[in-house]
This record gives sequence, C-alpha cells and structure tokens, in this order.
Amino acid sequence: MRVHAYAAPAAAEPLTPTVIERRDVGPDDVLIEIKYAGICHSDIHTVNGEWGPQAYPLVPGHEIVGIVAEVGADVTRHRVGDRVGVGCMVNSCGRCANCLRGDEQYCADGSVPTYGGVDRDGTITQGGYSTHVVVDTGFVLSVPEGLDLAAAAPLLCAGITTYAPLRRWGAGPGRKVAVVGLGGLGHMAVKLGHAMGAEVTVLSQSLKKQEDGLRLGAAHYHATSDPDTFELLAGRFDLIVNTVSAPIDVDAYLRLLAVDGTLVNVGAPAEPLSLNVFSLISARRSYAGSMIGGIAQTQEMLDFCAEHGIGADIELIPAEQINDAYRRVLASDVRYRFVIDTATLG
Amino acid sequence: MRVHAYAAPAAAEPLTPTVIERRDVGPDDVLIEIKYAGICHSDIHTVNGEWGPQAYPLVPGHEIVGIVAEVGADVTRHRVGDRVGVGCMVNSCGRCANCLRGDEQYCADGSVPTYGGVDRDGTITQGGYSTHVVVDTGFVLSVPEGLDLAAAAPLLCAGITTYAPLRRWGAGPGRKVAVVGLGGLGHMAVKLGHAMGAEVTVLSQSLKKQEDGLRLGAAHYHATSDPDTFELLAGRFDLIVNTVSAPIDVDAYLRLLAVDGTLVNVGAPAEPLSLNVFSLISARRSYAGSMIGGIAQTQEMLDFCAEHGIGADIELIPAEQINDAYRRVLASDVRYRFVIDTATLG
Repeated sequence: MRVHAYAAPAAAEPLTPTVIERRDVGPDDVLIEIKYAGICHSDIHTVNGEWGPQAYPLVPGHEIVGIVAEVGADVTRHRVGDRVGVGCMVNSCGRCANCLRGDEQYCADGSVPTYGGVDRDGTITQGGYSTHVVVDTGFVLSVPEGLDLAAAAPLLCAGITTYAPLRRWGAGPGRKVAVVGLGGLGHMAVKLGHAMGAEVTVLSQSLKKQEDGLRLGAAHYHATSDPDTFELLAGRFDLIVNTVSAPIDVDAYLRLLAVDGTLVNVGAPAEPLSLNVFSLISARRSYAGSMIGGIAQTQEMLDFCAEHGIGADIELIPAEQINDAYRRVLASDVRYRFVIDTATLG
Repeated sequence: MRVHAYAAPAAAEPLTPTVIERRDVGPDDVLIEIKYAGICHSDIHTVNGEWGPQAYPLVPGHEIVGIVAEVGADVTRHRVGDRVGVGCMVNSCGRCANCLRGDEQYCADGSVPTYGGVDRDGTITQGGYSTHVVVDTGFVLSVPEGLDLAAAAPLLCAGITTYAPLRRWGAGPGRKVAVVGLGGLGHMAVKLGHAMGAEVTVLSQSLKKQEDGLRLGAAHYHATSDPDTFELLAGRFDLIVNTVSAPIDVDAYLRLLAVDGTLVNVGAPAEPLSLNVFSLISARRSYAGSMIGGIAQTQEMLDFCAEHGIGADIELIPAEQINDAYRRVLASDVRYRFVIDTATLG
C-alpha cells in the first residue's frame, strides 16, 4: 500500500512531500488512517542526524492519532472505526522481564521506535507524518471518547513522558511538584500534575509564560534566571520533573528538594553532567531519569486525560508548514505543540 | 565532671591521653559509662581537619556503647544499669518537619554531631574515646540483651548507615543487592542485606576478601578491577549500596542496575562526579544518597540485629593502639572495625 507522507530526504534538509510503502496488514496488525500527528522536538533531532545516522528518506512523527481502517485476522482489541493512537514505539520482544512487566520501552532487546528503527520484520519504520500506518495491535492505544482527537496526539509522547515520572514518584495531594521548562513536555507536566492533585510550581527561565503556567494549573511560577529563586525554594519540593534537555546545574536543583525528594530528567543532554554527591546524601535525595512509558501505562494516561478533560494546547497546521514549524520549535516559539492535520498531506 | 579521654591536640597530630569536662546531668540527660567506642574512618578525616576546621583538642568517636550511670529527673526511657548506645548525633531542633518525622539527621537547623559540633547549650561536643559522656535522653539508644556490647558499637554508625538505605530502597526477598567495598560499612551492609532476605553480591576491587564476603552472607563476589565484571552483571541489581567514598565511574555502576534500580552512596567524595543522564533515563534508574538514619530507625536496626544475631566483626584494642589503628584503617588493614576498650583509658 502506497501512502502520502512528508519525509526528510537527507540530514538537515527540509522535509518534502513523498509517497511511501506501508506493509500489508498481517494477522496482528491494525491499519490506521492517520488524522493528526504531533511535532516533537526529537523529530527534529532525529531527522537532522543529531542522534546518530539515519536511513533516508525518513518520515518522522510519533504522536499519532487516527481511525482504524482495517484489522488483521487475529486482532481483537481494535475494530474498524475505533479512535486510536500510536506513540514512540511500535514493537518490542514481548518476552523479556521488562516487556512482561509492561515496561516495553525498556525492552532488553530494544523496543522498536515508531520511525527510523528496524521493525521485527526487518523493515525500517516510518512515522506519523503520513496518511496511514500499519502497527502491531499490541502497540495501538485506544483514544477515549471525549478527548479532542487533534489535542490528543501530543499525549502519545509529551503526555506519557511526563505522566510516567509523576506517577512513579507519587505526584498527588499533599505533594509539591516542580516542573522545569514550560514547553511541549512542561505544559503537559503542569496539567497532569495539577490533575493528580499535586501543588505544581513552574521553574522557567523567565516569567514570560507565567500567565499561561497559572492557567494550565500551576500554583506558583518562578524564574530560574533570578538567583533568589534558588534561595527562596530551597528544600521545597518532593519531586522536580526536568523537561529541559540542555545541561542544568544539577546541584542547584537538588537543593530545591526536601528529604527523600527526587529530581527526574525526561530528556538527556548529550554531554555528561557533574554533581556533588553531598547534594544527594544531605537529604536522602535522588537524581533519576525516565523515558516515555509502557503501553498499559500509556492507556492509563489516555483514560486519565479523558476523565480530567486534558488535552495538549496545540497549533494545528497544514503539512506545508512543517518546515516553518520546525524553525519555530527550535526557537521555542510554540504554545505548546504543533499538530499536523494529515488531511493536507495528499 | 572530669573524665579520661583520648584527644587530637591539633590537626593531623597523634591522639594523646587527656582529661575533659562533661556537663552536669540535666533533667533530660543520661550519664553513660562508656564501655566501647568504635573507630570510624570519618573520625580520622575529622581530626585531621580534612572536613573543615575543628576546635582542638578534639575527642572523636561516634560509635559508643556503655551502661547508664545516672539519669536526669525527667528521663523515663532509660534507667541506671541499662545497656545503651550513642551514634553520630546527640541533639537536633526537635521541631522541624524532618525531626518530627524521625529524620533528625536531616534536621533543618542541623543535627548536633557527637563530636566537634556545637551543642544546643553552646558547648563543643566531645566524642566517645572517653570513659563517660552526657547525652540528651532522646539520642540515647537501647542496646538489646543478646548483642555483644563491643560488637554492637559499630552498629551505631556503620550499622545504621547501611541499614537505612537497605530499608529505604526495599532490600528483601527476591531483591538483588550489590555492596561496593568490603570495609567497615560494607561488611555491615552484607550482613544486614543478607539478614533482610536479599541476594547480596559484593563488588570489591580484588578477590582478596572473597572468603570473608561469602562467610558474611554474600551469595556472589566479583572484582571491579576485572572489566568483565561490568559486562557480566549488566542490568542485574535492584539496589547498589556504594560504601566507597572515593570517586567512582557512576555510569559503569548505573549500568549494573535493572529497570527502577537505585545506586546509593553513603559517603561522598570531595570532588564532583560526572554522569551521563542517559544512564538514568534508559532504565528509569536513580542515583541517590543516604546519611546515617533517624533515632527511631537506629533503634529498629539495633532490635533487628539482636533478633538476627548480628554484630560487627571487630578487633578490640586498648587506647594506646588508637594511632596505630588509624594507620591501619587508612591502609584498609582491618577486618572490619577497630573498637576501643575504654577500660584502658584511665
């Protein structure tokens, strides 16, 4: 099956319209007519070859929502016409301890990324900037009624990436949570943390987006460019979710944690970071990392979002604006996620 | 009250016999006739001025056991003749959130160290290399019957320092725990982790102490000088307790952790350490620190040790061998803790 898509023809070149081949629908496969695809910062890193060499042309996109168009003979979880989503991975070994526990993202064999990966059948995966995709039923999520389909797309990456650490480290009533950075990930962390009942504080470089932060559910908003912030908030938080991939002063943020507090990175800078172990020892603190979330938890997150009326704040764009959107993402000029209307791909 | 003691007359000078003044027994105080005092590596750092300037002469020692000789009018928890112990702290504010939760070691005002600290009454505290000490009842532990008094002394620092992180990060049946370093702290971590039901592995520089490690309760023993160790054990452990204060290759040890695993330092090197955040993110790992333990947990540890017949492996020495013992501690030539018989101080 040949379908319309937008692909990077080579590293760091503008994306252009193209036609790609999707595999035949196997017994465990679901054919999805894609409606919307979010633009994630990692799409840009990947197509630019910043995270390692890629096979080109490459179709990015791992925040995918659409409608089931066809199912394989053995598929029972999804039916034609269902609203569904696909996130950052489309397969895993299914047999290792991590997969069996529902942590497919940490598959011992390596989970298969939605684009630029080698699928279990040996083909190179191509992502969601496309009209259709064929995905193993085990990696297809149900998008509950009540969620706006376009606003749901970013939940498949930005949503689960922040939901997972908030759950893992117990965001909830009586807990003070800080979110570092108010971008695509950060704005989801604020909404989700607030909906979980935590008291959320935004730590952003400046106060430029303060009004937004408070509207999204933050109780407090502080500028990290102001050194007083680090004095004022010392020992305050139970959990800090750092959504900024650029290097940070780890010790400065650790000192904002109460006893037993955790600073968790959901992105990784390329270079190593330095920290003083005393920052950990002096209050039994932890520095942790988290990467997206498993399939079962991603479904839990979508159900949670439906229950709480949470979608991403998006700017819906036609496909021809993808390259412009990339420039604006790199300039942090988006509130808070670009989503491609795939009806414009044809 | 004037009592015999061994004190450092100045930084990096040999300890010498001396006589010091102990305060009068106040209404909440307990006068302890010290029987045994353990020698902790941090005694040496402190008297040498490596952890900041000190007031000299300084009497070190924060692994103290003895018998109650007198109690203040308001003391109800201890009686004359009781077997008691004192660890690394002798006071705290008692009012901050951390104290109220039983984490006096993380007192917001700073807990008062057993020696070289400023007590709440303004005096400089002097430690356990002494025949008597006066301590607030709230910081005096009960040493259960059945524990050998001399072997119990190191529990007050080495015991609680390792017990606390083993408990905090869930050492128990079905859990794989690695202990880095087989010294005073490490040998307690092995005994305690094994008694909690965890499968314990020692990671030591060489295989020199392998026989000891297995006798103490380790199921496995590997040399970290052998690069194969890091290949063989990749992704193996739920918890690694690092008892070595010297800098380590944090990423190499993080890679030995399974998903959700924690590497916890109980000592801190002076210089900052470097780590690649991807080592955390790739398996939702944590790098943490822990410092001794609260008073209630220290009592819990002593009771646990009595129940499981656990004491430290010690070399009992007379006071005149303290300086020689210091040299041997610095050369890692002790199996596994020196304990001073304070009857030899007079």
